[in-house]
Amino acid sequence: MGFWDLNTLKLDEFRPGIRSKVENGSSLTMAVMEIAAGKEGTAHGHSFDQCGYVVEGEIEISIGDEKRLLKAREVYFIPAGITHNWKTFHSSAKILDVVGVISR
Amino acid sequence: MGFWDLNTLKLDEFRPGIRSKVENGSSLTMAVMEIAAGKEGTAHGHSFDQCGYVVEGEIEISIGDEKRLLKAREVYFIPAGITHNWKTFHSSAKILDVVGVISR
Repeated sequence: MGFWDLNTLKLDEFRPGIRSKVENGSSLTMAVMEIAAGKEGTAHGHSFDQCGYVVEGEIEISIGDEKRLLKAREVYFIPAGITHNWKTFHSSAKILDVVGVISR
Repeated sequence: MGFWDLNTLKLDEFRPGIRSKVENGSSLTMAVMEIAAGKEGTAHGHSFDQCGYVVEGEIEISIGDEKRLLKAREVYFIPAGITHNWKTFHSSAKILDVVGVISR
């Protein structure tokens, strides 16, 4: 692929409450995710960096000891090895999330 | 770092017409870039993927034989090895750009 327009991009059910569209490259995996209100991840870490941008809505991201409720135009960067998690409250969230996988 | 708010993030002069803020991880480099109107890159390719999101303004991105004028809420994904370039016209552009460097 080359280009996505988030105004028209069709997302697919990824798991209950999360719809997504994913692009897998050789060193990046890029995903648009729409997460329903009232959902929560599981704290975890991995050996590659992860970052993302909040397109709309609100999502709490925790990175190590830091935790912040992010809104549109806010960005997160999760360094490799740091435990992180996410949570939505009263609002859904649409995000663009990118992971850098060192070898595939 | 963990979080950036693009409403308040201070950018630094990167080169004439481009202001940026960069985060270097172990497998990702993430950059917010504000590019003035009437600027143009140089066609190039590299061995890692690159992707990004247009926050505001307009920027033309070419990826191989594809070329598109992107606006806010549009996304690009440049696979490793594919020649690409960028150009702004009458509008500046603010983008979030991510590259996945396989080894650093």
